[in-house]
Amino acid sequence: MPLRETCCSVCDFILEYDTPRIVLIKNKKVGLINRLVQLVILSYIIGWVLIWRKGYQDFDSIVSSVIIKVKGVAFVNSSGFGERLWDSADYIIPPEVNNIINNNPIAHSSVCVLTGKCVTFNEGVKTCEVLAWCPLESQTVFPNPALLGGAENFTVLIKNNIRFPQFNFSKRNILPNISASYLKTCVFNRTKEPYCPIFRLGDIVRETGDKFQELALQGGVIGILIKWNCNLDRSASECVPQYTFQRLDNRNVDETVSPGYNFRYAKYYENSAGKETRTLIKAYGIRFEVEVFGKAGKFNIIPTMISIGSGIALLGMGTVLCDMIILHLLKKRNYYKEKKYKYVEDYERVSP
Amino acid sequence: MPLRETCCSVCDFILEYDTPRIVLIKNKKVGLINRLVQLVILSYIIGWVLIWRKGYQDFDSIVSSVIIKVKGVAFVNSSGFGERLWDSADYIIPPEVNNIINNNPIAHSSVCVLTGKCVTFNEGVKTCEVLAWCPLESQTVFPNPALLGGAENFTVLIKNNIRFPQFNFSKRNILPNISASYLKTCVFNRTKEPYCPIFRLGDIVRETGDKFQELALQGGVIGILIKWNCNLDRSASECVPQYTFQRLDNRNVDETVSPGYNFRYAKYYENSAGKETRTLIKAYGIRFEVEVFGKAGKFNIIPTMISIGSGIALLGMGTVLCDMIILHLLKKRNYYKEKKYKYVEDYERVSP
Amino acid sequence: MPLRETCCSVCDFILEYDTPRIVLIKNKKVGLINRLVQLVILSYIIGWVLIWRKGYQDFDSIVSSVIIKVKGVAFVNSSGFGERLWDSADYIIPPEVNNIINNNPIAHSSVCVLTGKCVTFNEGVKTCEVLAWCPLESQTVFPNPALLGGAENFTVLIKNNIRFPQFNFSKRNILPNISASYLKTCVFNRTKEPYCPIFRLGDIVRETGDKFQELALQGGVIGILIKWNCNLDRSASECVPQYTFQRLDNRNVDETVSPGYNFRYAKYYENSAGKETRTLIKAYGIRFEVEVFGKAGKFNIIPTMISIGSGIALLGMGTVLCDMIILHLLKKRNYYKEKKYKYVEDYERVSP
Repeated sequence: MPLRETCCSVCDFILEYDTPRIVLIKNKKVGLINRLVQLVILSYIIGWVLIWRKGYQDFDSIVSSVIIKVKGVAFVNSSGFGERLWDSADYIIPPEVNNIINNNPIAHSSVCVLTGKCVTFNEGVKTCEVLAWCPLESQTVFPNPALLGGAENFTVLIKNNIRFPQFNFSKRNILPNISASYLKTCVFNRTKEPYCPIFRLGDIVRETGDKFQELALQGGVIGILIKWNCNLDRSASECVPQYTFQRLDNRNVDETVSPGYNFRYAKYYENSAGKETRTLIKAYGIRFEVEVFGKAGKFNIIPTMISIGSGIALLGMGTVLCDMIILHLLKKRNYYKEKKYKYVEDYERVSP
Repeated sequence: MPLRETCCSVCDFILEYDTPRIVLIKNKKVGLINRLVQLVILSYIIGWVLIWRKGYQDFDSIVSSVIIKVKGVAFVNSSGFGERLWDSADYIIPPEVNNIINNNPIAHSSVCVLTGKCVTFNEGVKTCEVLAWCPLESQTVFPNPALLGGAENFTVLIKNNIRFPQFNFSKRNILPNISASYLKTCVFNRTKEPYCPIFRLGDIVRETGDKFQELALQGGVIGILIKWNCNLDRSASECVPQYTFQRLDNRNVDETVSPGYNFRYAKYYENSAGKETRTLIKAYGIRFEVEVFGKAGKFNIIPTMISIGSGIALLGMGTVLCDMIILHLLKKRNYYKEKKYKYVEDYERVSP
Repeated sequence: MPLRETCCSVCDFILEYDTPRIVLIKNKKVGLINRLVQLVILSYIIGWVLIWRKGYQDFDSIVSSVIIKVKGVAFVNSSGFGERLWDSADYIIPPEVNNIINNNPIAHSSVCVLTGKCVTFNEGVKTCEVLAWCPLESQTVFPNPALLGGAENFTVLIKNNIRFPQFNFSKRNILPNISASYLKTCVFNRTKEPYCPIFRLGDIVRETGDKFQELALQGGVIGILIKWNCNLDRSASECVPQYTFQRLDNRNVDETVSPGYNFRYAKYYENSAGKETRTLIKAYGIRFEVEVFGKAGKFNIIPTMISIGSGIALLGMGTVLCDMIILHLLKKRNYYKEKKYKYVEDYERVSP
C-alpha cells in the first residue's frame, strides 16, 4: 500500500473521489428553515435573475440611421409675405438632416441692405445703417397666431433602420408585413395603428401634453423617441419599435433664458442695383428630434454560467445561516457542536 | 483549557483553522467522472470565459466624431441644365454635415414663380398657378441615365476620431504610420489597402452588391460602417478600424412606399422683375452615412474576480453530480451513504 | 425506523438539515493565514467591488439632445468683402445643425461665372473658363490674420437635455437652481462658474492648449465634451455635467494631408444679365463639436447578488490555500491528512 501511494500518487489523485463528509441533523425546525432559505435563493436565481431579468442573455446596444420625409401644404396670408402656399421645401430648414425636422412656421423676417456704412458696435443685432423700408429686427414681438398653424395636419414619414452589430441583426421600422398601399393611407395611432411610421404633427404635440397652436407661437423642441427593446431569442417579428413623444426644452417660459425655440438665418442676393442684400429671418419653429435607443438580448453561455455560478455560491448562505442557529441559538448547541466539529489539537500539545 | 476558551474565544476563533472533513472514495469510475467534470468546467472558465471571451476585461463604448471631404468633378450635359461641370460644392447637399454625404445626382428640377394667385388646396405639390414656362413637377419621371453617373469615380476622405472615455484612449482612422504622401495617392481596397481612409464611391456601392448606375437612378442610402473593436491590453497600434459597406434602405422597389432616396429643396431669388421666384429641386441621390461603432476591452480586476468566483462555485457541480451517482445509482450506495453521512438524531429521541 | 424512511423519504429530506462536518485545527500559523486571506477577500468584495466600484449598481447609457446658440458680432475690413459687420447668421454654417457649430471665419472666396464653355477635365477645382475678374481658387494662400479673429469673444449657449431611459431619469444642463438673470450674465469658468452653460470661444480654445488666432488661420476641430456620470442612488441635484475641451484634428500640420479644417460651398444666383452665377467660398473655420457621453448607476439586486455570490465563492480560496499548506508543507502533514480525510476503500477490496 505505501508502495502504490509512492509510485503512482498522480493516478491516485485522478482516480480518487473526494466529497465532503456531511452531518445529517434530524431537526424539523432547522431543516425547514434551511429548505426555506434554499427555496428563496433558488426562486430568486431561476425566477428573477434568469427568467424575469434575462440573466442568461448578453446585450448589445443599437446602431441606427433615420430618414425623414414631411408632407403637407399650408395656405398662409400674412402681412409680411402676402398670400402664399407653403410646402415642405419652404418650411423644412435645413432641407436634409438625418434625424431632425425643423418644422418652422417662419414668423419674423426683416430685410436689410448692407450699405457698408456700418454703425458703431452695439450689443444688439442692428448690424447695418437702416434704410426706410428696412424694419429693424424686433426682439419681443412674435406673430400671433403663428403663421404656420396649419402645420398641425402635416404628416411626417420616419424611416428608421437599426442594427445590433454584435448579433448581426438588422431591421426597419417599416415592418415586413406593412404593405405599400397601407403606408399610403395610415396615420400613427397609439392604440389602433401603433406600427404605422407616419405621424401627424398635431398628434405628436398633443401626446406631449402641449397644444400645437400655443407651442407654435414661441417654438419648442419635441423628441420623437423610438425604443427597440428586442429579445432575439424569440421570433424577429416580435422585435418592433415603440414610439413615444416628449417635450425636450423647458416648458416653463418664465424661468428660462431664450424660451421656446428659434434661430436666425440669412439669405443673400444681389439686388437689381448690384448691391449685396440679405434677408435676415428669425424663425420660430417646432423642432422635431428623432432619438433611437434600445438594446437587444440574446442567449449567451457566459452570463448564464456567471448567474448560475454565483447563485450556487449564494445557496451556501442557507447553510451558514442554519449553522449559526444550530451552533449558537439552540439549547442543544453543544451537542450539535460536538457532532459537527472534529477538534484537532496541535501535535506538540497532543503527544505529550 | 476551559478557562482559555472562555476568556479568549475570539483569539481562538481567529487562530483556529476550520476545513471541511473529506471522504476520500477510491472508486476509479466515480473518480474519473469527477475529474472529467472538473476538467470541463475548468477549461470552460479558463479557455472560454477568460481567454476567448475576455472575461477578465471591462468594456467601454465608443465616442466618435467624423469629418468628410469629397473630391471629384463630373461633366454633365443635360437638357435641364445644359453643359456644365459639377464639383463638390454643387453636389454635396447640405455642404457641411458631420457624418453624412449627400452625393446628389440632381435629377429633376422645375422652376416656379409664385404669382400670389394660388389655386385651391390640392393634396399634391402643385403649389402655384402655373405659367407657361414653368413645368409642373412630375411625380413619376426621373432621368435615365442619372445625371451624375460620373460620380462613380469620386473619392471621399473620411476623418474619424474616436475616444474610449473610460480608458482615456483616443485614436484617429488616419493611422500614425500613414504618411501624407501615401494619403495623396491611396484608395481603399479591402485586401491591399485596408487602412486607407479614402474611398471610391463606385467601390463602396459595388461592395454592397448594387450597381452604381442603377442605384443612381432612384437613389438610395448606403452605410459606411467603421468598426473599432480594440483590445487595449495589447499595443495601441493593433487598434485599427474595419470598414464595411451596407445598403440601408429597402432594395426591393416594389414593396416600399417612396422607394430609393430623394428629397426636395428650393432656392429662392428675385427675378429681374422683382418677383420672388424659387427653383424647386427634387434631388435623387445616393446618401452615404458614416456609422462608427465598437467597443474597447481592458483588464479589470472586477470582471476577472466575478468570472473566477462563479467558476469556482460551478466547480462544486462536479461533486453534486458524483454524489448523486455514488449515493443513488451505484450498487454500493448504502455503503457509501454510511461513510459520507454522519446521522445525528434529535436529543430527545437519542437520550431515552 | 426503516418503515418511516421508506414511506416518507421526501418528508425526511425536507426536514433533515445537512451541514458539512468540519475539522477544527488549532494551529496558530495556519489559522492566522486563513483569516488573513479571508480578510483580504472580504475587504476586496465589500470595499472595492461593492463600495468603490459600485458593484451593487446597474448602469445605463445616455440619450442626449443638444441645441446651440451663438452670440457675437465682429467688424471685418477685408479686401475681398470691404468693411462689413458679421453676425451669427453670417458665420454659422449651416445655420441649424443639432450638435455642431461651424464658426467660420470665412477666409477665401472666389466668384466664378458659369459660362457654359467648360474646359477639359482637370483633377483640380478649376471648373469654369475663367473671366478676367474671376480669381482662380488659390490652393495655398489663406489670409493672415484670419478675417474673424474677433470671434474670440463670441459666446455660445449650449442647451443639453439628457435621459437615462432605463431609469426614467432626465435632466438639463441648465440646472434647476440657475436663474434666468444669472444666465444672462454668466460665462463658463472652470473654477468659478463650472455650471454656466455659456462659453467664450476664446476660453474653449485656450483650454485645449491652442491659441485662437493661430488656430483661426488654418482652421481646426474642437470637441466640447460634456460628461454626465451620475449616481442615481444619491440626490438628483448631484447629477451635474462636467465640461472639457479637446482638439479633435491632428495638430501637427506637417504630418497630415489637408491639415486644419476647411470646406467649400457655393451660393448661386442669376446675375443681371440672366446668367447663372455662383460664388464659391472656401471657408477656413473652427468647427465646434458637442459630444455628450456618460452613464448612470442605480442600485440593482442582480449585480449586487452576483458580486456577493462570486465573492462567497472566492472566500473558499482561503480554505484551498491553507489546505495546501497544512497537507503538503507542514511537518505534521500526515497527521493532519489523517484527520481531514476519511479513506473509504472499494467494497470488493475491503470485504475480503
